[in-house]
Amino acid sequence: MRRSLGSARRLLVARRLHTRHEPGAISMDTAVLEYAVDEEAGVLDIQHTRTPPEMRGQGVAEKLCDAAFEHARGASLRVLPSCSYVSDRYLPKHSEAQGIAVRSVDSATPGLCICVSWLGVASLRLVDARRRNPLTAALLAKLQSFLGACAAMEVTHGGPLPEVRTLLLESTGPVFSSGHDFNDFHEAPAAEQRRVLEMCADVNALLAEVPQVSVAAVSGACVAGGAQLAASCDLVIARDDARFCLPGVRTGGFCHTPAVAVGARVAPRKALELALLASDVDAVEAERIGLANSVVPSAEWASAVEQTVNQLARTFSKSVADGKRTFYRQAAAPALRDRYAVATDTMVDMFSSPAYQESMAAFLRRKE
Amino acid sequence: MRRSLGSARRLLVARRLHTRHEPGAISMDTAVLEYAVDEEAGVLDIQHTRTPPEMRGQGVAEKLCDAAFEHARGASLRVLPSCSYVSDRYLPKHSEAQGIAVRSVDSATPGLCICVSWLGVASLRLVDARRRNPLTAALLAKLQSFLGACAAMEVTHGGPLPEVRTLLLESTGPVFSSGHDFNDFHEAPAAEQRRVLEMCADVNALLAEVPQVSVAAVSGACVAGGAQLAASCDLVIARDDARFCLPGVRTGGFCHTPAVAVGARVAPRKALELALLASDVDAVEAERIGLANSVVPSAEWASAVEQTVNQLARTFSKSVADGKRTFYRQAAAPALRDRYAVATDTMVDMFSSPAYQESMAAFLRRKE
Amino acid sequence: MRRSLGSARRLLVARRLHTRHEPGAISMDTAVLEYAVDEEAGVLDIQHTRTPPEMRGQGVAEKLCDAAFEHARGASLRVLPSCSYVSDRYLPKHSEAQGIAVRSVDSATPGLCICVSWLGVASLRLVDARRRNPLTAALLAKLQSFLGACAAMEVTHGGPLPEVRTLLLESTGPVFSSGHDFNDFHEAPAAEQRRVLEMCADVNALLAEVPQVSVAAVSGACVAGGAQLAASCDLVIARDDARFCLPGVRTGGFCHTPAVAVGARVAPRKALELALLASDVDAVEAERIGLANSVVPSAEWASAVEQTVNQLARTFSKSVADGKRTFYRQAAAPALRDRYAVATDTMVDMFSSPAYQESMAAFLRRKE
Repeated sequence: MRRSLGSARRLLVARRLHTRHEPGAISMDTAVLEYAVDEEAGVLDIQHTRTPPEMRGQGVAEKLCDAAFEHARGASLRVLPSCSYVSDRYLPKHSEAQGIAVRSVDSATPGLCICVSWLGVASLRLVDARRRNPLTAALLAKLQSFLGACAAMEVTHGGPLPEVRTLLLESTGPVFSSGHDFNDFHEAPAAEQRRVLEMCADVNALLAEVPQVSVAAVSGACVAGGAQLAASCDLVIARDDARFCLPGVRTGGFCHTPAVAVGARVAPRKALELALLASDVDAVEAERIGLANSVVPSAEWASAVEQTVNQLARTFSKSVADGKRTFYRQAAAPALRDRYAVATDTMVDMFSSPAYQESMAAFLRRKE
Repeated sequence: MRRSLGSARRLLVARRLHTRHEPGAISMDTAVLEYAVDEEAGVLDIQHTRTPPEMRGQGVAEKLCDAAFEHARGASLRVLPSCSYVSDRYLPKHSEAQGIAVRSVDSATPGLCICVSWLGVASLRLVDARRRNPLTAALLAKLQSFLGACAAMEVTHGGPLPEVRTLLLESTGPVFSSGHDFNDFHEAPAAEQRRVLEMCADVNALLAEVPQVSVAAVSGACVAGGAQLAASCDLVIARDDARFCLPGVRTGGFCHTPAVAVGARVAPRKALELALLASDVDAVEAERIGLANSVVPSAEWASAVEQTVNQLARTFSKSVADGKRTFYRQAAAPALRDRYAVATDTMVDMFSSPAYQESMAAFLRRKE
Repeated sequence: MRRSLGSARRLLVARRLHTRHEPGAISMDTAVLEYAVDEEAGVLDIQHTRTPPEMRGQGVAEKLCDAAFEHARGASLRVLPSCSYVSDRYLPKHSEAQGIAVRSVDSATPGLCICVSWLGVASLRLVDARRRNPLTAALLAKLQSFLGACAAMEVTHGGPLPEVRTLLLESTGPVFSSGHDFNDFHEAPAAEQRRVLEMCADVNALLAEVPQVSVAAVSGACVAGGAQLAASCDLVIARDDARFCLPGVRTGGFCHTPAVAVGARVAPRKALELALLASDVDAVEAERIGLANSVVPSAEWASAVEQTVNQLARTFSKSVADGKRTFYRQAAAPALRDRYAVATDTMVDMFSSPAYQESMAAFLRRKE
């Protein structure tokens, strides 16, 4: 799953130096940047940069990095800066490069690639397009442990923010996810079936419980447990070809657990209709009934998703984490006055933050 | 209320035999099929078929039945097979005839005709169009006992399904229902008023509690308690001339109990608006705000309703009954994790069904 | 803040008498009507009418009042009848004048003008347009005491109705309200911050708890605590230029308490989106997602608002007050049968009202 950049020569800095692309390397005279590409993860990993002593002080390593990031951008790849020069010196200076840089890539679990961006966006990408992105027990276990770690990340006023600041659930291929893998349930003992279902419920509950905002970027068919996973995210951006379905009744069953997540977002009558008639809901109707927040044309899709998750990562703070948690908590209190009690406590805590006091002061100064 | 089919002669089987229509009978030489038509119920009741010994073995009874069903279809009547030949031998062989055959007809309660189809669709039809289909105490009592019986029907994995598999609430005339009959409340003792209201609440609650899916097919004005009854069904199909109204404030009152059912379907602000301003909601807006699932043009109305309720009757199973029950039950639990606990139990029970295990196996075989 | 009507002469009754406009007075020969105009409150206060003995019995005072009301109408002013002739003799005879007459005006609190109309509509108008109508602690305290008084007003079957029968929250200027005044929170002790927030929560909760129907007439930007106040009203009429926003995240905070009110009206996913992304919601989308009941073009705005609140004031009764209270109360009960128990009690109480019994009797007579 590794590919090279090809051997076409390209001019990097017109005047004095020329850049050559080697398979897996970019060089400039005797200076070289070595990389590897993980296609499945969509990541270009910069593993080493080497500048011989006689070439130092001329910005050669920086130019090699410029070329590597430019290439990655053109090939829609993200960049993993394994080389410490890139992570410690190049990236802090190049904010435009931060947009496609990642902190870590984990594709150890079949069908799932988890990749955390420099800005703090954790992409959980379903990558088994050929099998219609099933939510296998192994994949659910991985999501559970990753989301569990997110839930445990501490967010404080003024303290350092956690590395993961936004969660993005996305997929490759024409099917976002077809839901559970029947191999996990067919002829399995009831205890094992229950274990997988409880793990799945935990994953879905965690998407609301983690401090980070969870966003599903849904393209193509979003079915059964797949629709459940999308519905469980705080926000859903639907590509115009997205469609949602709870098809259980078609095979003599019923989408009981997916209907929980859909029922938490959609008016009861409509949620029941989806489960009872297994009707297909397209992106526009999904937005209309509350299953999606917005519908984006294919041409604008990638940038719209990136813009939203990066905005969320940039504005992430304890106030946002508290805001999300407080919102779900107050919504579970039947009486309005109890809801206000919950939210008032959070508000007073927010006012205690020095950063927010400074923000209010700045606002009041501007108004004078 | 009985009418004959008229006396026009018609050719049934061109070559050897001729069919004659007699008032209340179709004959073929000396073989005869006797029927009666109940116009209010819209039912043609086949009471006897008699084939003399010398005509047996030539499919004569079958041809008489073909003629009776063809006639019923042309006149938009359903067929009640009181004659055991029709129920036990003709219908099991003729699936196309099953679509308009009924198992029972009960029009004993003024203003209501209950008719259970061969596929298991129980039509509860309001038939007092002249009085705007009021929900009289007698009619509510009948609905209560019928729905109570439905609630008690046992649904098991693999066992025989109950005779009633879908409930269809429908009406004749320009008003779906005008709601309660004021005669039941005016100058009645408070205890009697309360008795009628509690019966009404029970009927509305049962529509959600019965294992069968309840569908309201709403045409024309759907008012006060009528709107409540429609709102209480799991699904609502609205004809394009449907309109909904909670008019209590117009006569110095308030639609308190109808607002419960409407409030369970529609966003609180909109439900309050309906009750406070008595505004008329047309079919398109009803669909938009969640009072109806779909709007169907008059020309496609009858077939759309039939298609939906028959699909629901055909897919009915313990999983569907459990799905409906679980959906409402989980929705009443404030915490998401409690909701998943409810739905997970149901899911594990579904997996224990031999039919569903076989369905999963077939699915996995197809994928190999 | 007082202005006179100008000195242009105008003909009141063509034949015999002439009316002169003096600053603060309308006279007819020696008869005079003295008034003062409060521009901020938009009110013309008729303070005295004096008719000399020789002019009595010719309807002179009535004509002076006709002129004053005509002038007020032309200048979009309401009329406060401080003079007892106007309140006790003129108004009861002139129902068209009642539409713009007020019972009381209170503009003692900076930024707020409270004005109760003859029909019982209490207008709570935010009038500090220059400062974007902030909800200062003083203003919230005033709203709290006024709404507390409304909550305590007794409504009985058949008894006299309270003076306030509908609440109208409205504003002047391009911003409906920008929300809290940061001066109340910046560098304030936590206990004081909490006091203001709890007062604010109380105000918002009271808008649902008072027996009167509360209506927000939203024009222009409706932001943070302003959006909360609008969302807390029973009904919202939006002018086509209205837009709603929860902008907390833009300044490093979060609109925790506004999200409670918005979350009570809008689907959870959309409410979270508003708070997380601080997206601007225009009037049409506000209506679509349940934040507003209707959108009215600017040209029809004033009359649409007036028509709705006057209709609500005219139909106000114990049944309506109970209807509102019962609606919110039943909605807080998770089980459907518990909701019906609440509403059934209210219904039986409504039937006990002699007025409603008479209304039913009249209805039944018409049907005979």
